[in-house]
Amino acid sequence: MQEYGHCKAGRGIRILIFSSFIISYYFFHCFEFYWVGLVFMKEIKDIKLGKNMAVKELAKQLGDSGFQAQNLGKAIDIIKEMIRNDAAIFLSFTSNMTASGLRGVIISMIKSGKIKAIVTSSGSIDEDIIRAKLPYLQGSFEADDAKLGKEGINRMGNIFVPNDRYQYLEEFSLNALEEIYKEKKSFTPSELLEKIGKKIEGQSFIKAAAEINVPIYCPGITDGAFGMQLAFFKKKHNDFEIDVLSDFNNIINQAMQYEKTAGIILGGGIAKHHTIISNLMNNGFDYAVYVNSSSPYRGSLSSATTEEAKSWGKVKEDAKSITIHGDASIIFPLLVAPIEEFL
Amino acid sequence: MQEYGHCKAGRGIRILIFSSFIISYYFFHCFEFYWVGLVFMKEIKDIKLGKNMAVKELAKQLGDSGFQAQNLGKAIDIIKEMIRNDAAIFLSFTSNMTASGLRGVIISMIKSGKIKAIVTSSGSIDEDIIRAKLPYLQGSFEADDAKLGKEGINRMGNIFVPNDRYQYLEEFSLNALEEIYKEKKSFTPSELLEKIGKKIEGQSFIKAAAEINVPIYCPGITDGAFGMQLAFFKKKHNDFEIDVLSDFNNIINQAMQYEKTAGIILGGGIAKHHTIISNLMNNGFDYAVYVNSSSPYRGSLSSATTEEAKSWGKVKEDAKSITIHGDASIIFPLLVAPIEEFL
Amino acid sequence: MQEYGHCKAGRGIRILIFSSFIISYYFFHCFEFYWVGLVFMKEIKDIKLGKNMAVKELAKQLGDSGFQAQNLGKAIDIIKEMIRNDAAIFLSFTSNMTASGLRGVIISMIKSGKIKAIVTSSGSIDEDIIRAKLPYLQGSFEADDAKLGKEGINRMGNIFVPNDRYQYLEEFSLNALEEIYKEKKSFTPSELLEKIGKKIEGQSFIKAAAEINVPIYCPGITDGAFGMQLAFFKKKHNDFEIDVLSDFNNIINQAMQYEKTAGIILGGGIAKHHTIISNLMNNGFDYAVYVNSSSPYRGSLSSATTEEAKSWGKVKEDAKSITIHGDASIIFPLLVAPIEEFL
Amino acid sequence: MQEYGHCKAGRGIRILIFSSFIISYYFFHCFEFYWVGLVFMKEIKDIKLGKNMAVKELAKQLGDSGFQAQNLGKAIDIIKEMIRNDAAIFLSFTSNMTASGLRGVIISMIKSGKIKAIVTSSGSIDEDIIRAKLPYLQGSFEADDAKLGKEGINRMGNIFVPNDRYQYLEEFSLNALEEIYKEKKSFTPSELLEKIGKKIEGQSFIKAAAEINVPIYCPGITDGAFGMQLAFFKKKHNDFEIDVLSDFNNIINQAMQYEKTAGIILGGGIAKHHTIISNLMNNGFDYAVYVNSSSPYRGSLSSATTEEAKSWGKVKEDAKSITIHGDASIIFPLLVAPIEEFL
Repeated sequence: MQEYGHCKAGRGIRILIFSSFIISYYFFHCFEFYWVGLVFMKEIKDIKLGKNMAVKELAKQLGDSGFQAQNLGKAIDIIKEMIRNDAAIFLSFTSNMTASGLRGVIISMIKSGKIKAIVTSSGSIDEDIIRAKLPYLQGSFEADDAKLGKEGINRMGNIFVPNDRYQYLEEFSLNALEEIYKEKKSFTPSELLEKIGKKIEGQSFIKAAAEINVPIYCPGITDGAFGMQLAFFKKKHNDFEIDVLSDFNNIINQAMQYEKTAGIILGGGIAKHHTIISNLMNNGFDYAVYVNSSSPYRGSLSSATTEEAKSWGKVKEDAKSITIHGDASIIFPLLVAPIEEFL
Repeated sequence: MQEYGHCKAGRGIRILIFSSFIISYYFFHCFEFYWVGLVFMKEIKDIKLGKNMAVKELAKQLGDSGFQAQNLGKAIDIIKEMIRNDAAIFLSFTSNMTASGLRGVIISMIKSGKIKAIVTSSGSIDEDIIRAKLPYLQGSFEADDAKLGKEGINRMGNIFVPNDRYQYLEEFSLNALEEIYKEKKSFTPSELLEKIGKKIEGQSFIKAAAEINVPIYCPGITDGAFGMQLAFFKKKHNDFEIDVLSDFNNIINQAMQYEKTAGIILGGGIAKHHTIISNLMNNGFDYAVYVNSSSPYRGSLSSATTEEAKSWGKVKEDAKSITIHGDASIIFPLLVAPIEEFL
Repeated sequence: MQEYGHCKAGRGIRILIFSSFIISYYFFHCFEFYWVGLVFMKEIKDIKLGKNMAVKELAKQLGDSGFQAQNLGKAIDIIKEMIRNDAAIFLSFTSNMTASGLRGVIISMIKSGKIKAIVTSSGSIDEDIIRAKLPYLQGSFEADDAKLGKEGINRMGNIFVPNDRYQYLEEFSLNALEEIYKEKKSFTPSELLEKIGKKIEGQSFIKAAAEINVPIYCPGITDGAFGMQLAFFKKKHNDFEIDVLSDFNNIINQAMQYEKTAGIILGGGIAKHHTIISNLMNNGFDYAVYVNSSSPYRGSLSSATTEEAKSWGKVKEDAKSITIHGDASIIFPLLVAPIEEFL
Repeated sequence: MQEYGHCKAGRGIRILIFSSFIISYYFFHCFEFYWVGLVFMKEIKDIKLGKNMAVKELAKQLGDSGFQAQNLGKAIDIIKEMIRNDAAIFLSFTSNMTASGLRGVIISMIKSGKIKAIVTSSGSIDEDIIRAKLPYLQGSFEADDAKLGKEGINRMGNIFVPNDRYQYLEEFSLNALEEIYKEKKSFTPSELLEKIGKKIEGQSFIKAAAEINVPIYCPGITDGAFGMQLAFFKKKHNDFEIDVLSDFNNIINQAMQYEKTAGIILGGGIAKHHTIISNLMNNGFDYAVYVNSSSPYRGSLSSATTEEAKSWGKVKEDAKSITIHGDASIIFPLLVAPIEEFL
């Protein structure tokens, strides 16, 4: 249980800090902390927008506002600290993220070299392979789905995906698998994705990760259109195998080799759970930032907070951690833009 | 796009129906449909509770109310029709469902023989094995997580799971795997779960399914505490294998063998997606009921509606389908209680 | 902060209770409490549905399940206790509740004589006056709104309200106001609604409350279709006045006259806030049950929990209180059905 | 029903536009629209963050992404168009917005002269008067509420408000009312707030509005701490009156005097509803942007979308309108920052 924010300190230190505030107030007229019950707290400040304001300046102001804006500010501080203290960052995201513009942010983070492992769901592979070649389209949440179906358009919220995208995916996957299969018959998902990444042309997070040897863990790899091609390939080549067991050992071993680990986890599902369970034997994350739009009151792991994770030891009891309750499609770029190391 | 509810009809039929309503009104004073723009619609009725009211009577009244109560009523009608028309029912649920009392409803449905396939996430295996032997506990959403962690209690919403539960799971799994491994070295998840089900004593959905040969598909089987035991077992016995590819072919083949299929899908994640993608080659579900608490405005599959599924062909364009937007922990028992075939 | 559920007790008492459990276990084989860290907790039990199961039996089983089902069980216990201990119940609800079948439950509760005050938003007056005479209709969330608009149908989620309903409301209101105005020129909202209630024929919560002198507080009375008629009436009769100030004093005074007060609060908005602020000078509710579907992470009062209310003194620190996070359209009937005093 | 986004056009025009795209592609290599079924659609683009990226550049990129980021982009375009076409803007917000840093954005918008009317809930008056003088504090959602209560701190999500803030509000209000009462005995809420605004020192949206004669409508003015002071003042001065009826006529009349009206509506409750009902006689808004975090599947007005509003005629059938489903605390600054006229 947090005692009003992060500003806990022993009595002596408090007096010291208090004095320095008094001094700073007299000299610089900046007295932004506030004293309540011997714990001092920062003030809520009004946001002041400017004409050519930089994103990082807005993010800083959001951090001194309330509600999820404030949590965003805390999350930025936590990410800066995890980088400063060389924690190994595990990045987790769901497939809708890669269907949207967030993929660009993810690619940039991977290329920065600051991400040590990626965990995602199978759909991300579909979206990434397709979008490296063919764009998805801006649609509308209110479209008539039966009509879209007839016109061969698949709706993912307000993103439209014409059927030909999946035809391309089939062709690409089949060709890639035939070649990869010549080398070896059994692959862990992360091995396979490294091979796939090297075959993708164009913008791609799988490719970006493959190029600098960042493993992409995908424990539910069959569950998507690419996964369906894997299953069909198995029907043709019965000795083709995906070894999901070894990859679980791989991610656990990877997590255990670091002194400190950090999780940046967007959305829920198997990607989120796998990231945190893999850090359990490592005694939990030292830093954790979740961005999540579902309600923790349903009891699902997808919607569980970083606080709940502390009861499990998936996040360390004294870890710096925060859950931003909201839509990653808007929040994630704001979270990353102020972190120069990721750009 | 629905034209105000389900009561569309040709002009001639409409006049016929209209006449019959006039007649029924004069003779029986029951005129519960209402005529708007040549489409008639049912009235919203006030709920009248009674002292020993049966659940099925309440459910009926909820169906004539508004908002999600009305959707619940539509869902009950759809489930009754899928049973009447012998559609093969695919039941999908997330692990928090099996951690809660809903597991009892699921077991009862399986035992009824009306469920043809189950799709779930790995956590469900953990909860089912443990709860067959040791109970979970009633807790509180507001508990102090750091304190719980110190006392060895893991929090799942307001369900508490003491650490010794997982020790039991480890022992059970290790013993079961050693025995199963003597028979064979490679298993699909559904094969393995059938073997496991036959070793469980006490109340268990895995056991109930194994006893009447209902396959449990679990495409992300590694992602849980049981899955971790599988991975550790692999370290000891390198020829031990989980074949996730063949199980995808199995579920697709199973779906294709039925004339009609139906999905009852609780929650999201890999369990939901796998259920519907497996019915894609079958041209989609003929009936679909989703119970879901997350917002479709995030664009994730977990929160997507049965309407969105129509654009993909995962649910047939003219399928009877509905999404109940709410918490399965309360809604699912209400949904099942009026279906005598499931009890 | 709750210490794992409601079962706290002194050490001596704990030993006593513990012994009695051991005894009951040996004799009756019912050992439903569980001992964790010297605090005992109830088990999560599987739900077992039966063919003619009564709603109250289902509700009892839901209470031993997890997530919001468990919170529902706690809420039922709290409501039973508030009645047993003669707390004065303040019932608050938003207008969508009265547009749906929940109105029947509300009317039944009022007629039971157990409700001492009602607080609602202005729309409830519209829905109640109209539905006493003319039904609302069952529609669909996915309807084409522009098309509905052209056909003169207003959509409220999946409830459809044809335009003629509002014409009726106008006529009724105008006639009623002309008569009421003959008696007096200035009314508090609760006075006016009592007069209105006496003029309504058919099923109506305003009428039910008027008949047994339960005040209906409606601090935002102008904000609706009935409120618009009040404003238009003012243009004709400039001395016609609605005195919102005195009604605030009235509700505060009413709350202060009781030894204990209890809040049953459905939804948010002005109805919720007014109910709890009116119990502030009374040092807060002794019992509080909220049913609420919006997220507490936005910082709005509409979504605030009973826990947050304790920091404000709107709910007493040691009050029995719970928030059910979910959709009142389904949850509220389940909550009320087991309370015989309300039926 | 929208036909895939906003790009509908007659066949001839489509061919023309198509040609121009072909030309632009050959000459400028920018071919960002995409052709599906004779309707062209924009592509989803990956977001590329830069080191000193301006907020307006990020907002532009978000508009070409998916989900709520895309809706944000549409909303910015709609706001730019409402300003360009001189629509009278009605700005509506709930009290938690003014408790947070958003108040700074609101003040800046008012000062720009582009806002013609404000509609808010009573709590906004409390927060604005207090924060003009005394700051609110940054807290935590997970704080122990009972403990906070004992220490005299009221929690509003992760914003903490010490009790002395409300003592200040009482004093301020009492003094202000005594003076205002000397002038006149009966006030509409908007009149009263103009008087109050002229007495506030420091940063204040009420003051900013008063200074340039922008009316603040507050139909539920009693429902807050300031409202409680009004009620207590009434006990002392029985002829003191708040005339809520005339203010409803005032806002309707104001809306009817403009050729075009636009609504920017943050959150729900009485503020949202009053804004849109007041534009009903005006045949609905020509432009509407909602920012809303609650689910439209509950049937409450608070969560209703701009689409639903079209069935009521509260938003014109052909209005440019969009609902951003998310948290205003982060979204609203992003929405306003690219609108130079508001800065």
